[in-house]
Amino acid sequence: MADKTSNAMWGGRFSTGPDAIMEAINASIAYDRRLAPQDIAGSRAHAAMLAAQGIISSKDAEAIREGLLTVLSEIESGDFPFSAALEDIHMNVEARLKEMIGEPAGRLHTGRSRNDQVATDFRLWVRDQCDAAMEGLRALQTALVDQAEAGADWVMPGFTHLQTAQPVTWGHHMLAYAEMFDRDIGRLRDARARMNESPLGAAALAGTSYPLDRDATAHALGFDRPCANSLDAVSDRDFALEFLSATSITAMHLSRLAEELVIWSSAQFRFVSLSDRWSTGSSIMPQKRNPDAAELLRAKLGRIFGAQVALMTVMKGLPLAYSKDMQEDKEQTFDAADSLMLALAAMTGMVGDMTANREALRAAASHGFSTATDLADWLTREAGLPFRDAHHVTGALVALAERRGCDLPDLTLEDMQNAHPAITEAVFDVLGVDNSVASRTSYGGTAPANVRAQVTRWRKTLAEASPHA
Amino acid sequence: MADKTSNAMWGGRFSTGPDAIMEAINASIAYDRRLAPQDIAGSRAHAAMLAAQGIISSKDAEAIREGLLTVLSEIESGDFPFSAALEDIHMNVEARLKEMIGEPAGRLHTGRSRNDQVATDFRLWVRDQCDAAMEGLRALQTALVDQAEAGADWVMPGFTHLQTAQPVTWGHHMLAYAEMFDRDIGRLRDARARMNESPLGAAALAGTSYPLDRDATAHALGFDRPCANSLDAVSDRDFALEFLSATSITAMHLSRLAEELVIWSSAQFRFVSLSDRWSTGSSIMPQKRNPDAAELLRAKLGRIFGAQVALMTVMKGLPLAYSKDMQEDKEQTFDAADSLMLALAAMTGMVGDMTANREALRAAASHGFSTATDLADWLTREAGLPFRDAHHVTGALVALAERRGCDLPDLTLEDMQNAHPAITEAVFDVLGVDNSVASRTSYGGTAPANVRAQVTRWRKTLAEASPHA
Amino acid sequence: MADKTSNAMWGGRFSTGPDAIMEAINASIAYDRRLAPQDIAGSRAHAAMLAAQGIISSKDAEAIREGLLTVLSEIESGDFPFSAALEDIHMNVEARLKEMIGEPAGRLHTGRSRNDQVATDFRLWVRDQCDAAMEGLRALQTALVDQAEAGADWVMPGFTHLQTAQPVTWGHHMLAYAEMFDRDIGRLRDARARMNESPLGAAALAGTSYPLDRDATAHALGFDRPCANSLDAVSDRDFALEFLSATSITAMHLSRLAEELVIWSSAQFRFVSLSDRWSTGSSIMPQKRNPDAAELLRAKLGRIFGAQVALMTVMKGLPLAYSKDMQEDKEQTFDAADSLMLALAAMTGMVGDMTANREALRAAASHGFSTATDLADWLTREAGLPFRDAHHVTGALVALAERRGCDLPDLTLEDMQNAHPAITEAVFDVLGVDNSVASRTSYGGTAPANVRAQVTRWRKTLAEASPHA
Amino acid sequence: MADKTSNAMWGGRFSTGPDAIMEAINASIAYDRRLAPQDIAGSRAHAAMLAAQGIISSKDAEAIREGLLTVLSEIESGDFPFSAALEDIHMNVEARLKEMIGEPAGRLHTGRSRNDQVATDFRLWVRDQCDAAMEGLRALQTALVDQAEAGADWVMPGFTHLQTAQPVTWGHHMLAYAEMFDRDIGRLRDARARMNESPLGAAALAGTSYPLDRDATAHALGFDRPCANSLDAVSDRDFALEFLSATSITAMHLSRLAEELVIWSSAQFRFVSLSDRWSTGSSIMPQKRNPDAAELLRAKLGRIFGAQVALMTVMKGLPLAYSKDMQEDKEQTFDAADSLMLALAAMTGMVGDMTANREALRAAASHGFSTATDLADWLTREAGLPFRDAHHVTGALVALAERRGCDLPDLTLEDMQNAHPAITEAVFDVLGVDNSVASRTSYGGTAPANVRAQVTRWRKTLAEASPHA
Repeated sequence: MADKTSNAMWGGRFSTGPDAIMEAINASIAYDRRLAPQDIAGSRAHAAMLAAQGIISSKDAEAIREGLLTVLSEIESGDFPFSAALEDIHMNVEARLKEMIGEPAGRLHTGRSRNDQVATDFRLWVRDQCDAAMEGLRALQTALVDQAEAGADWVMPGFTHLQTAQPVTWGHHMLAYAEMFDRDIGRLRDARARMNESPLGAAALAGTSYPLDRDATAHALGFDRPCANSLDAVSDRDFALEFLSATSITAMHLSRLAEELVIWSSAQFRFVSLSDRWSTGSSIMPQKRNPDAAELLRAKLGRIFGAQVALMTVMKGLPLAYSKDMQEDKEQTFDAADSLMLALAAMTGMVGDMTANREALRAAASHGFSTATDLADWLTREAGLPFRDAHHVTGALVALAERRGCDLPDLTLEDMQNAHPAITEAVFDVLGVDNSVASRTSYGGTAPANVRAQVTRWRKTLAEASPHA
Repeated sequence: MADKTSNAMWGGRFSTGPDAIMEAINASIAYDRRLAPQDIAGSRAHAAMLAAQGIISSKDAEAIREGLLTVLSEIESGDFPFSAALEDIHMNVEARLKEMIGEPAGRLHTGRSRNDQVATDFRLWVRDQCDAAMEGLRALQTALVDQAEAGADWVMPGFTHLQTAQPVTWGHHMLAYAEMFDRDIGRLRDARARMNESPLGAAALAGTSYPLDRDATAHALGFDRPCANSLDAVSDRDFALEFLSATSITAMHLSRLAEELVIWSSAQFRFVSLSDRWSTGSSIMPQKRNPDAAELLRAKLGRIFGAQVALMTVMKGLPLAYSKDMQEDKEQTFDAADSLMLALAAMTGMVGDMTANREALRAAASHGFSTATDLADWLTREAGLPFRDAHHVTGALVALAERRGCDLPDLTLEDMQNAHPAITEAVFDVLGVDNSVASRTSYGGTAPANVRAQVTRWRKTLAEASPHA
Repeated sequence: MADKTSNAMWGGRFSTGPDAIMEAINASIAYDRRLAPQDIAGSRAHAAMLAAQGIISSKDAEAIREGLLTVLSEIESGDFPFSAALEDIHMNVEARLKEMIGEPAGRLHTGRSRNDQVATDFRLWVRDQCDAAMEGLRALQTALVDQAEAGADWVMPGFTHLQTAQPVTWGHHMLAYAEMFDRDIGRLRDARARMNESPLGAAALAGTSYPLDRDATAHALGFDRPCANSLDAVSDRDFALEFLSATSITAMHLSRLAEELVIWSSAQFRFVSLSDRWSTGSSIMPQKRNPDAAELLRAKLGRIFGAQVALMTVMKGLPLAYSKDMQEDKEQTFDAADSLMLALAAMTGMVGDMTANREALRAAASHGFSTATDLADWLTREAGLPFRDAHHVTGALVALAERRGCDLPDLTLEDMQNAHPAITEAVFDVLGVDNSVASRTSYGGTAPANVRAQVTRWRKTLAEASPHA
Repeated sequence: MADKTSNAMWGGRFSTGPDAIMEAINASIAYDRRLAPQDIAGSRAHAAMLAAQGIISSKDAEAIREGLLTVLSEIESGDFPFSAALEDIHMNVEARLKEMIGEPAGRLHTGRSRNDQVATDFRLWVRDQCDAAMEGLRALQTALVDQAEAGADWVMPGFTHLQTAQPVTWGHHMLAYAEMFDRDIGRLRDARARMNESPLGAAALAGTSYPLDRDATAHALGFDRPCANSLDAVSDRDFALEFLSATSITAMHLSRLAEELVIWSSAQFRFVSLSDRWSTGSSIMPQKRNPDAAELLRAKLGRIFGAQVALMTVMKGLPLAYSKDMQEDKEQTFDAADSLMLALAAMTGMVGDMTANREALRAAASHGFSTATDLADWLTREAGLPFRDAHHVTGALVALAERRGCDLPDLTLEDMQNAHPAITEAVFDVLGVDNSVASRTSYGGTAPANVRAQVTRWRKTLAEASPHA
């Protein structure tokens, strides 16, 4: 399958070409072609710098830079003849350039190596994904804030252990996720800043004797500075691992929201209706309206975290500098990034489209003794009981109501006073769910007023977010 | 992009079609088309059984079975018009069948569901991979046994902690891997036997009221029996997880052998030369002869184990029966299986082609006090010292030799006797590496005679292995 | 902290003792003391064999064997003075033996090494865990079969995507888990058989020149045979990895059942009540009855699978034979095994104690158009519609019922006939949930008769299970 | 074993106490006692704030705060009677406080819950670990910089694929790791900043109606601000996951350095000698000097990354707010942090103590055609060949030298000119390893002058690092 003559690129030393299996495990062009724009940007910056430093002629540099643009447009238009025998995107591009412009193409690789070249390309790619992920997260936050604003005072059960605990507001619940995704943005921002150093010019591993201007290429490619150690520059894949770490945590957050959407969509909960756009039917059960999108998003943690495990395992125990094992970095990262982008878009769509069933939420919040804590707090605050004692009195009243098959507000004052004589009629004020949520005004609490204040804060944050977060 | 009318397959209940993002995360046809042969085999078995049970007419069954063969040949020839809007391989096949044979196509799905259908298809696929992996492992064992036979008495250093410990034979070292890969075969054989139950007929999750003959379809598809519980049949993915577990351990074994090949290929070790077929050059360093294949194999554990992590994470906490999350099972398993097959082929090629540097092995074994244990054993056996005391005497002599810059056989008898008076001239017999390895005749020991006996055993085992291991 | 003189056990070669940090990372006695019974059993078998082979005297062997029993009783009674300076259990036992019986203790280590010794001890320990886990799984199966028998005909909703799909029986659902745990038993049985080879006598890595009878020690320790390759014997940890793989899948099964118990315990589902023994309260919300045990079991997959990841990562790329990295094997395996045993006991207790809410299950099954498939099947079977057409008609009727706010049996015959004229009064027979489940009589289906037959099969299987599964 | 009366803390609602198994899986006191200092600091801050806000009396607050100090000193002195029946550290501390000061103890829990309490404690603990890890990393960097300074101009082979590639300097290699560990510090610093928000006052999940001053408690505990959403505050474990992510990458870096130390310590490489303090001997092979510490550090990635996998798996798909699954967070994080701290200390000790074998490094660098790239660069720079052509010429000369059994500088000028006529005597200047490394002066290159400049930069950075990095 391979054009054996192409092995000529390794010099004239090998008597036998790699066979088909070797080519199959060795060639990366099937996937690293995605790095074409980054590869060409890197090469154009390198050529310009070589000319500026007098290492190649301006004429050659110009031919290279123009030729590379042509190659890029061939690739973008789908006309580029990719060759597996040429192994990777770097060789494919360079070989095509040579066909186009001849000898000057051979001068492009002066003072660099595939090691620093691929490290540069891949960093640029991952950096772009950070930007895209941050943008995707902002869009998702916007959808959540929209939901929060609409339902700032809709009461729903707050759960712990999936048991009704205390009433909270729909808006408050939505904004909990806005917080999580904000930390995700922070992690991506930090990762982006940390990875934003240029490996270009580290050459194979030792640097070079050519008088390169690494600051110039770094600047041209939007890096903050060149990497300070050439061995590290070519053997480092922290940037991919940190991206995978950050996105794994994002995927975990998505899995939690997705789990809630699946549970909330059940006939037993009916807390939300997902739109038809994000549901599917069944080939055998015509009545089904399956929250497929939510389930698929719940599963994405597997995929994205699996990629992190894969790359971490690959990197374990590799001696410096470059080892071929590191070629496994790209497919994992590509797949994880694609999965994440799709997941963010789908979750944003689902959250934007979903309809909270306000009545069902409220009904659920009104059962299950959700205001028991309010009662305990009242006993502490108004009747002066130590909290632990108030807890016992409340427990007894809950047990009584449970036996009666009613909820706390349905008990009589006499029932209450039998449990503790200090209880007065005023206690019933705190047993309603609206009063309960309205009372949680401590900073960060679920009170509608708090939720609205947070919505305002989020609107401001989101408006101020730069295009690249 | 999607043909919205195709949603008709979910019945007439949805007012809006899923949009492009939904289709992108929902459709599996891009990868599950690999299941076409299994899908068609399953459908043909199902149709025959439906007719045999009188559920559909023989004429319809015949039309279906013939039509499916035509579909299969279209797929195999690359002419099949796959449609993402039809979501998956099952729907693509069925829709094409309907185009071909009309109404009878609609009777094929009687008494089954996509849930049992996909479970059946995927099991058949994984079962095939077990067979292929066992075959690949047998081929690798053969290559190792060939190496072992050739070098049954070549002496090399046996390492612990990568420090020279005791001399061993090349053949013995090769056969250590034959043992590992044999356990891998055993795991695959057990996994294959365990997964070999037919989900077909479990329908959506509850079984069916049609008088299916599940034994008949199980038998037709080579399964040992039908699954005994319909809920389990459609919600189980143990077979994929067990395959991934087994192959992860195989990949770990490959990583160990690969690590040794990388180290042994270094200029410092020079224990082996990999052939040109399994080495590559450098774009910047013309002298390089890189053990790329070995490095890539060392990395495959990341990929395969990453797949196991992914699927295990996906399956965590899924309620019965089918959840869409489980659609993530296939890409991970496909990729792991492909990686494994390629890795086995490459390792078999590399081991087959490599040349052990007999002189370098022997020279390395002869240094580093590798026969110190032989000395200690001699002191115990011949001079009657308790082992711990013999250990101390030996330690002292090693320290002396190290100070002298020589090895143990280079010490004088006087040196020896200064350390312990019971030492005689006879001790020098056990200090040579050939004598050392020849003396390790306990069962499982490294003596050339043992190695040859094991080679004979392996030849017999490999010859007797059925085509499907 | 360390008694520096104890380094004497490494011979007289080191001028400086390891310092406190080295001891902290190097010493394993804090955890490997759990291997004391296995270590002593292995040493007793070794000593007896050495005497039988004439390598040591019968008198020495007797002293060693008796002394070791005394050491064991000291350890069992808690009187044993463990020393971190003596690093590990092997050295602690041997040093104590020497204090007791003097010189003969030094002969025990003849023809073996810590490498084969620890491999033997750890295998024996893991083998015991396989037996214990199989027993624990049988107990859990018994609890599930008890639930299945009691509720063989209790109707509940069968879910896919957590949406009501078709009615199933409680017994059928319980037995789905019995199937899963049976595969787990099978995996452990296979793993146990595969690991049941004796490393003892492999010595450091090369075998030995002593005329050991490895079959004798293998037999004495209950192994099927000695390991066939000494290098493999000391460098293999497959047995631990396979145990962790098998138990990870078990933990995944537990996580699914636990998830269901958590969801079913919610106020919205109320499908089951967990007993007080397996629930906890809240420090602030007196009404809470939290399914803590179920949640903790759901989480155990993390712990057990985390251990598999840890050990697989450790083993990646280790050259033969023994590397110190492998010392990380024990804590991970110990923790995973302990977690599993506790989890099995807790799940058995929870399942045994839980009460299914039969009315809530039935009510849930009766809503959500759960018999839509029965209707579609009726249309196919009785009215002769191709399945896909029947699916469309059913979809239309579900949509109508949903608009009306009723369920399928509440539609009139006229409604039905408007959707398809071939429908007759007889259709209503298949729309009730009891009829639905009773009709699923295909093998593996949910019909109560099937469930009872399976219960009978399980009772027989469980009765026949040997004490060690 | 449990004091059943202690269940009284859950109120009077349960009729049966949890049994022994339940207690075993539920109680966390065996490990969360490590949080005692954090728990008491949090409680003291909470009590002071409650008094400042007029929620409890100053007298009660004073009694609480003094009593807690007494409890802390009891714990620190080992006199505290921990009780498993009291489940966790929070309840143990509170119960003891009540014994000491009576009723006021019951007021401490006003306006908070175990949910926000444990979230606060655990954050404070992880924050401390970040500080400690940064300090440990600085110490390791210092050891590396010391090595770099000593060997700024020692020539060694730079490897790719573990094949000799180009000469580099020992100092440059050491500083590559300083770069890696600096990114690790950056990740920890970012993680610390992100986690530095106070959950205290989020109460169970909804906030509270008490007029808490959350800024005050946040400030008292060194947090930057209170968490903005109470649901998020109690259900978030990102801080632990991010810590585990960051430390996993650190552990990966350690595994790479450890791998190099193991390989470099082999008899074949002899690049370094580890000190006796960081080596161990063998029970059977007296001559061994095993790099055990390096091997154990290589393995730590398994342990630390296993913890990340465990916690990520645990968190997958958990609905809000608190679920008991999250109790699995602590043991994993404790173990990972302990492993990391020990690993950093050990690596710092090993690097500090090790001796580079300058001659062996130089000899290795002088073989293997390590200056082939220098030749190719010379051809490009001085003879004007395009790089790809220069590469071919060099390859031919390497092949020639290999056939001759010599290295590049041993070829004659005539040999050179046969390969390409433009080669002159001047070429020999670039073929020596000292000239080679001296020529790599591009920024980040391996030239000794560069290394010395970087050492100066690192000295400044390390000197300026605040005590807490």
